[in-house]
Amino acid sequence: MLLHKISEVREQVKEWKRQGLTVGLVPTMGALHAGHLSLIKKAVEKCDRVVVSVFVNPIQFCPGEDLDKYPRTLEADTKLCNDNGVSIVFAPTPNEMYGDGQMRTNDTLTYVIPPFFYVNTLCGKSRVGHFDGVCTVVNKLFNIVQPDYAFFGQKDAQQLIIIKKMVQDLNIPVEIVPCPIVREESGLAMSSRNKYLSEEDKKEALVLSKILNNIKTCYKKGITNVEALKETAFQFLNSHHDLEYLEFHDADNLEEKQIADANTRVFIACKVAGVRLIDNILLGE
Amino acid sequence: MLLHKISEVREQVKEWKRQGLTVGLVPTMGALHAGHLSLIKKAVEKCDRVVVSVFVNPIQFCPGEDLDKYPRTLEADTKLCNDNGVSIVFAPTPNEMYGDGQMRTNDTLTYVIPPFFYVNTLCGKSRVGHFDGVCTVVNKLFNIVQPDYAFFGQKDAQQLIIIKKMVQDLNIPVEIVPCPIVREESGLAMSSRNKYLSEEDKKEALVLSKILNNIKTCYKKGITNVEALKETAFQFLNSHHDLEYLEFHDADNLEEKQIADANTRVFIACKVAGVRLIDNILLGE
Repeated sequence: MLLHKISEVREQVKEWKRQGLTVGLVPTMGALHAGHLSLIKKAVEKCDRVVVSVFVNPIQFCPGEDLDKYPRTLEADTKLCNDNGVSIVFAPTPNEMYGDGQMRTNDTLTYVIPPFFYVNTLCGKSRVGHFDGVCTVVNKLFNIVQPDYAFFGQKDAQQLIIIKKMVQDLNIPVEIVPCPIVREESGLAMSSRNKYLSEEDKKEALVLSKILNNIKTCYKKGITNVEALKETAFQFLNSHHDLEYLEFHDADNLEEKQIADANTRVFIACKVAGVRLIDNILLGE
Repeated sequence: MLLHKISEVREQVKEWKRQGLTVGLVPTMGALHAGHLSLIKKAVEKCDRVVVSVFVNPIQFCPGEDLDKYPRTLEADTKLCNDNGVSIVFAPTPNEMYGDGQMRTNDTLTYVIPPFFYVNTLCGKSRVGHFDGVCTVVNKLFNIVQPDYAFFGQKDAQQLIIIKKMVQDLNIPVEIVPCPIVREESGLAMSSRNKYLSEEDKKEALVLSKILNNIKTCYKKGITNVEALKETAFQFLNSHHDLEYLEFHDADNLEEKQIADANTRVFIACKVAGVRLIDNILLGE
């Protein structure tokens, strides 16, 4: 069932709650791929009813980012959801979520702001305000859908950590379910932004997973010095790659690591053919 | 029933919800007086079950404010609640709400931040960060108690407007019920901070309600120019009074007024004997 109005979703969820059914939420920006599908399948397995939100959230895009050209494939998304046991596809307009365009700055809109320590690193450093927009919209979706469980991919690992922190800090009554990264056979992490890549670009994009896998191999061989592990990356980089960061952080609290351990997550962001891609790996898995 | 743990409150509320009962929340900082009692009575009348939270919220006090000396009277508060049909008095410790003391800055804690336009005026101007703390704790209480209705006094009119805005912006599933200011026979608005005043101070404190009532009288006589209305205040002020602001704003969206109308609210803050007092009046009532 495709719904566009907040009030329609509320009404349906209320009825489910009356029946004692559990509700799962999979928040997405649409352009659904196999990564999303894995979240959806997990949600359908775990919950009586599943809501997939499809909303390209304007307030999480920074000036100059790809808000306008971000892929929008609602018809295909809805079909995928319907075919896989989703009860509601919730696809609101920006106006439904935020009122008119005047309402979207911190001068006129209440924001949920994650802690500076969690934001001032990795993607948050170059995407200023991005996670404020993410937390605000996810908070809104939680309040609209009131899910028992919400499903997020490990692909956006910083986002997942920040959402978990928000849930803890604000006592939100939802359980966050993290889901593993889904990869193409080549190793490339699934992403809606992969649609921007040609076949040639996709080969160059393997640099992210190659660097991460190689670091993990080195770690398993006993190298734990982060500077030494970072240096193993350069052999994979060429002029097609514009490395933004390669960093080692605690997988739970994002503290930066000098010595890697099993709970260290390695984060990478790299532009390939002008497309900004991210990936990450947990060393202890 | 006096509860100190978030988990205990959640469990009780869950049981009520299972029974289909409606839940009301009255958030307070304790030191309950006749103003709070009017909120409690309204809540008990409107809801099947009522939770009164008693929590002196450290993150809404600014440096140099009265956090440590703020009156704490939990035993009397609990008795008042029990005698008036309240089901739960929820009195958490700061640690229960925020973890240890390290967790209370925007470096380490997720905050709910009201719009700058609503904050950069009236009390928000001198109490920097105050409404961030208010919104964050009220958001937490909403998530813990999940009330159908929440009751707030018009005494803190800017707070009420900001909370309503937060509920709207974040789609929080709660109905905010505003309750009129309760006054002593003299006209002094009820406030926990009145405990700081001697009998002499209390007489001087009447300056707030006198100024407001006189402005309303002038408005009813046909004076709508805000500058002219402001000038009527000075006759009431003497060396015991330290006027912080006297302002005219739209009662819903806080826009500042040059010409008063029925939906104009007049806000005043004034220190009397070193105690900061506030009051307000709606001209069209």
